[in-house]
Amino acid sequence: MRTAGRPNDELRPVRVTRGFTKTPAGSVLWQQGDTVLLCTASVSRDLPPWMKDDRAGGWVTCEYVMLPGSTPNRKPWPKIGHTDGRGTEIQRLIGRSLRAAVDLSKIGPHTIALDCQVLQADGGTRTAAVCGAWVALADALASLPAEMPGALHRPRPTMGDGPDAGYGPVPARRDSAYYDPAGALVEQVAAVSVGVVDGEVRLDLDYADDSRADVDLNLAMTANGRFVEIQGSSEQGAGFDSARLTEMLALGTLGCQQLLATQRAAREAIAK
Amino acid sequence: MRTAGRPNDELRPVRVTRGFTKTPAGSVLWQQGDTVLLCTASVSRDLPPWMKDDRAGGWVTCEYVMLPGSTPNRKPWPKIGHTDGRGTEIQRLIGRSLRAAVDLSKIGPHTIALDCQVLQADGGTRTAAVCGAWVALADALASLPAEMPGALHRPRPTMGDGPDAGYGPVPARRDSAYYDPAGALVEQVAAVSVGVVDGEVRLDLDYADDSRADVDLNLAMTANGRFVEIQGSSEQGAGFDSARLTEMLALGTLGCQQLLATQRAAREAIAK
Amino acid sequence: MRTAGRPNDELRPVRVTRGFTKTPAGSVLWQQGDTVLLCTASVSRDLPPWMKDDRAGGWVTCEYVMLPGSTPNRKPWPKIGHTDGRGTEIQRLIGRSLRAAVDLSKIGPHTIALDCQVLQADGGTRTAAVCGAWVALADALASLPAEMPGALHRPRPTMGDGPDAGYGPVPARRDSAYYDPAGALVEQVAAVSVGVVDGEVRLDLDYADDSRADVDLNLAMTANGRFVEIQGSSEQGAGFDSARLTEMLALGTLGCQQLLATQRAAREAIAK
Amino acid sequence: MRTAGRPNDELRPVRVTRGFTKTPAGSVLWQQGDTVLLCTASVSRDLPPWMKDDRAGGWVTCEYVMLPGSTPNRKPWPKIGHTDGRGTEIQRLIGRSLRAAVDLSKIGPHTIALDCQVLQADGGTRTAAVCGAWVALADALASLPAEMPGALHRPRPTMGDGPDAGYGPVPARRDSAYYDPAGALVEQVAAVSVGVVDGEVRLDLDYADDSRADVDLNLAMTANGRFVEIQGSSEQGAGFDSARLTEMLALGTLGCQQLLATQRAAREAIAK
Amino acid sequence: MRTAGRPNDELRPVRVTRGFTKTPAGSVLWQQGDTVLLCTASVSRDLPPWMKDDRAGGWVTCEYVMLPGSTPNRKPWPKIGHTDGRGTEIQRLIGRSLRAAVDLSKIGPHTIALDCQVLQADGGTRTAAVCGAWVALADALASLPAEMPGALHRPRPTMGDGPDAGYGPVPARRDSAYYDPAGALVEQVAAVSVGVVDGEVRLDLDYADDSRADVDLNLAMTANGRFVEIQGSSEQGAGFDSARLTEMLALGTLGCQQLLATQRAAREAIAK
Amino acid sequence: MRTAGRPNDELRPVRVTRGFTKTPAGSVLWQQGDTVLLCTASVSRDLPPWMKDDRAGGWVTCEYVMLPGSTPNRKPWPKIGHTDGRGTEIQRLIGRSLRAAVDLSKIGPHTIALDCQVLQADGGTRTAAVCGAWVALADALASLPAEMPGALHRPRPTMGDGPDAGYGPVPARRDSAYYDPAGALVEQVAAVSVGVVDGEVRLDLDYADDSRADVDLNLAMTANGRFVEIQGSSEQGAGFDSARLTEMLALGTLGCQQLLATQRAAREAIAK
Repeated sequence: MRTAGRPNDELRPVRVTRGFTKTPAGSVLWQQGDTVLLCTASVSRDLPPWMKDDRAGGWVTCEYVMLPGSTPNRKPWPKIGHTDGRGTEIQRLIGRSLRAAVDLSKIGPHTIALDCQVLQADGGTRTAAVCGAWVALADALASLPAEMPGALHRPRPTMGDGPDAGYGPVPARRDSAYYDPAGALVEQVAAVSVGVVDGEVRLDLDYADDSRADVDLNLAMTANGRFVEIQGSSEQGAGFDSARLTEMLALGTLGCQQLLATQRAAREAIAK
Repeated sequence: MRTAGRPNDELRPVRVTRGFTKTPAGSVLWQQGDTVLLCTASVSRDLPPWMKDDRAGGWVTCEYVMLPGSTPNRKPWPKIGHTDGRGTEIQRLIGRSLRAAVDLSKIGPHTIALDCQVLQADGGTRTAAVCGAWVALADALASLPAEMPGALHRPRPTMGDGPDAGYGPVPARRDSAYYDPAGALVEQVAAVSVGVVDGEVRLDLDYADDSRADVDLNLAMTANGRFVEIQGSSEQGAGFDSARLTEMLALGTLGCQQLLATQRAAREAIAK
Repeated sequence: MRTAGRPNDELRPVRVTRGFTKTPAGSVLWQQGDTVLLCTASVSRDLPPWMKDDRAGGWVTCEYVMLPGSTPNRKPWPKIGHTDGRGTEIQRLIGRSLRAAVDLSKIGPHTIALDCQVLQADGGTRTAAVCGAWVALADALASLPAEMPGALHRPRPTMGDGPDAGYGPVPARRDSAYYDPAGALVEQVAAVSVGVVDGEVRLDLDYADDSRADVDLNLAMTANGRFVEIQGSSEQGAGFDSARLTEMLALGTLGCQQLLATQRAAREAIAK
Repeated sequence: MRTAGRPNDELRPVRVTRGFTKTPAGSVLWQQGDTVLLCTASVSRDLPPWMKDDRAGGWVTCEYVMLPGSTPNRKPWPKIGHTDGRGTEIQRLIGRSLRAAVDLSKIGPHTIALDCQVLQADGGTRTAAVCGAWVALADALASLPAEMPGALHRPRPTMGDGPDAGYGPVPARRDSAYYDPAGALVEQVAAVSVGVVDGEVRLDLDYADDSRADVDLNLAMTANGRFVEIQGSSEQGAGFDSARLTEMLALGTLGCQQLLATQRAAREAIAK
Repeated sequence: MRTAGRPNDELRPVRVTRGFTKTPAGSVLWQQGDTVLLCTASVSRDLPPWMKDDRAGGWVTCEYVMLPGSTPNRKPWPKIGHTDGRGTEIQRLIGRSLRAAVDLSKIGPHTIALDCQVLQADGGTRTAAVCGAWVALADALASLPAEMPGALHRPRPTMGDGPDAGYGPVPARRDSAYYDPAGALVEQVAAVSVGVVDGEVRLDLDYADDSRADVDLNLAMTANGRFVEIQGSSEQGAGFDSARLTEMLALGTLGCQQLLATQRAAREAIAK
Repeated sequence: MRTAGRPNDELRPVRVTRGFTKTPAGSVLWQQGDTVLLCTASVSRDLPPWMKDDRAGGWVTCEYVMLPGSTPNRKPWPKIGHTDGRGTEIQRLIGRSLRAAVDLSKIGPHTIALDCQVLQADGGTRTAAVCGAWVALADALASLPAEMPGALHRPRPTMGDGPDAGYGPVPARRDSAYYDPAGALVEQVAAVSVGVVDGEVRLDLDYADDSRADVDLNLAMTANGRFVEIQGSSEQGAGFDSARLTEMLALGTLGCQQLLATQRAAREAIAK
């Protein structure tokens, strides 16, 4: 039986608080069951050093940390740095999902830093982070000035580009780009986890599910139903076949649609 | 047109050299087109500190590094540590894929350390690493002693377990386990990348493909056709729908089957 | 004129939310004007390595971090570690203040880790952290088991002891000690800042005050009116004389008394 | 009884050697009883990156380390960095105290780096460091060239400014400033510790005092009797009241006056 | 008796594979008995920050790492950085030896990074690295463009110069320099180890020799018989006298001559 | 002409102050011209983790740092750790030289930590460190207790052993060993630099010599005239031949003999 008698195809209750803090341009407290994150979006005019002068637009970064008190057994800060290997993997997934939502060539020479802090962990923190960070990102984009002289005509960054690319120079693919923050938010993105527990496909795993799951699949999806990130693992189970994958994708799609609606409702509420 | 006129559904030529070095228990030079990795498997009797005394079996770890000269523009070592954020994400994927191949409860109190070093990078290094590391792992398991007194009756590690778990204690799920290295290799695992380039689905992306791809999907699969790891991204493209995903999975499955055959052929060659 | 017309001798409005999260033993959201902190208290049975076997009782540690989005200009994580020099100085002050509240010899072999996270910074974060952490600490002490066999008869740690002491062995000063969590909370401690701005002594500086202050003094005090920590600086001003100091101490004492009352009110509210 | 029968209100004997080494602009061996420090002041024309171009003047930094052999039980170097949390707290106090001695707007675009190395530790190292570093700083200021073209008209750094400020931009408060090294040394600063041991107030605690003290208070003071830094703690004692504080401040003031005289005598000795 | 009956004055068999990988400008697999290294030489137009604008030419750096699987007991990566104290000492020796081969004033504003990776360790890795890196360096110099406008007339770096010099500014010793890559390779350099084992002088120590040696001496030498680096130790033995040293130098000279011939033969083989 | 008209074969004046500080077991201020070091020797009963339980005796470690003010241009502390690559190379040389002076099997389970701090640098710091550290080490050995129950019968560490060995287990070479601190100091060791400047061989290079030298050779030698460490480089010169080397060794031997006499004189002075 699932925690609190929740059916397999049901999300945990979600509560979204925009403007939870007011220092950053976007600030969202995302509560999904007992998983609680603070997602902030800060805007600066510094660009990362690997962004060459001949490119238009800006960049979106992401950092994910679990606060020490977010787990029943306190999770100490790492000795070096502020997040561990698991956190590094997660923040890369979140960053890619959110960059898929933005036309980076239209935000001018800005870096938008998304910071996802887990205040309380009960499974599904990475997908909750995608959901909350999208709302914070949208609020931050809305705060950009409408006009930005000197931001035009730099070619757009291309696929595979980024600090860790490790490869040679990437040729630019577009000849021009224009500063257009109103048009920069090109996609709405939400994410959810699905998994196989005791032979059943379940939506939105909490920790009790996750710790017993044979398969764990995370799914980020746009409002028009296209996947932007899929990440599924069966570390010590026996793997999963195409049929099972199809089943999981279908349930995950339903979950994403509901979360996308929740994001929209939060965004439509008057006054940030 | 693809590099060297390669058809979209064709793997690059693969060459496998077992026993490339002889210090570790397993040592494989995996060449796939111009991507070259040295994958080694070293056995020790040290267990990671988080493995409690009340558990049977051992652990499999993975580290992935790109040597500085593996890319045309030299990739400097990171300031701190020996791999960067991208490498951390990749080595976690490789580690999960390979742990799926082993019944960890049967290897006794051993750690098998897989080290995947990229000597030359031309795309697809993470999936080549899974393929090469599986061969090295199989050779290392074959080198374990047949008998190991004192290795019995410790419960097996469970799902979600690991150094980064960040959650509370995990209840053991099996009551007993036995040292049985011959039976520990429970799956054969290979991996391949597929992607969408210029609107076409392509198998085994090289760097020229990868730098222009709209979607990049990595797939790890067992010999009996079950997925153990799926990781797909469309960072700055427009996402992908279910039909495209099905197409990519089908082509990836074909690629994995060929790579699994290549692994078997390499393993069957007489004398390591 | 002061922000929002606040008189010089008035605290900002304080709001205390106990049990803000439920993973740790104590969890307090402390809001003081626009300064917002999450203070958690986590209990574990690990003792720091420098606590020798021949001592009774446990230890209280403290870590202070500012989340990146807590300031209008995003504050990046430090390259190494999770807090910077300023944070290190602050967390040492908080730790000493809170250890003054506890008879460490009575908590058995437990470490209580206080984590003070600044969610939004508007001045006075270190003193707000002392206030909030005391409430979280009190809640955590109340969660300790009433009986703890095997915790008796280890001499109590003494003055000057600690991980950074840098001196030789410290002789124990008491012969015995008993596990007694109900009696361990020996003091109530609150803290506040006072300062000299434009020649006037002001209570509870916000950022607008702090950035113009000639003197900045932080004061931690017990419920019976004794100081446990005083830290005053006049970095680039002309210093301050005894009369000014007396004035600041008097105003700070008034502020602490109000904050102590606020803490008691929060603790007395039914159900954590 | 105190070490060597020293009365409670007596300083340990002090010996000051200016020009102990000749590579830096200022170099002072400060011996206070068995506490021995080498304080050096090095001048460079590099400014810290956070000092914006629109400001006049320079900066004073401080680093404090205990050499491994300075304590009877060898103090190992930290794993990361060259000083630990205690050292970080101390060097911030020393830096603030010494910046209070200088009009930073008058030293031109120079950084003066104060390095306080503890060669032998017997209590009171942080206050001895303030005393010795002031002499080294004064010698370094005397070595600055009398004229510096191009150093004029940059506004002066303001309160709360610094690498760790963590807040938004600070508005400049003065419109102009002039290079004037002879006028830059605006205050003489010395420091001393006082404490409560066995119920008695004692001046200039050595380690035997410090390890048994109920209260430990450090005081930095100018030649005209104004406090620039006060730092008092009662970590595990019962705190201290106003009367006790007044008593400690009075005794500390006497101690500072003697140390200020010692500094002047050392400075007045002919030829550095 | 020596491993495999090798006489005391005989080198292990050497095999040199140029162009082992094709991403860097030079890439050499150097096998000497069971010691195997991959030495790569990568060219970039970045100069180290300490190279002032008033100097001609470029720089040659070296990094040495042992891959984890290169030893029978896996050698873990260091916690911080990618090489340990021993590796740091070794890479400095290799770097000096190779810089002796190049007129740095003639290579224009290029950095040539030599990366020596030990794939399999059986003694003599540092001297094998010098030999292999020289071949890679020669191949990289041959890849520099013949003409480089704007590279003239910067004075040459001088002795004692470098990132760790720790001293004041170094006066330039030559007035002009010209870009001339064909003339930049001014010396051929090879290296070998000799040692005293069981009272006998032996050439080219493998691990079995090295672990029992009373003296271990590494020798780098040019083609015209001049020493560029000598490093001899007798850590726990009784030292060695002049006669013994003469004997070792004579045998080492013979070894270097053979290795220099091997390098030339490898370089003369048609087409890299 | 050489600094201060010093002849090529003359040492700088040396002054040795034993017991410069009194916290460590040995403490020596070694002044050689304008090069000044503080060398301390601290004794502890902790052994390094790699020393297995089946071995007799202890270990000698060495750390070398240059204090920031030791050079005219301040040398900042490294970002990570407390010494840089050059310091790491140097401290390994010093450590080997000093371990050659001790029969480690006779000092019981003690670690003697040698800390060499450069207070003022004018060339020849590494050889001055060897000289000063030997005196400190001798003083520390004299402080060991004459009897140590339980220290017998552990085999002695062997050649090639140490934290960085990176190889497999080393077989012990002696069957028994006895605690015998009086007999542990088996060699007296001193060191000096020689070099070729302007075509002349010079003894004991200061910075003015060193920065212009074509060859730099460091020599550590025992009282009975045997070499324990030779390290010579000709980084950017044309190398040196056997005749030159013989000349340098002869001059260095003379220098070492004088320094050995200086050490003995310092040790023979009554009362440390």
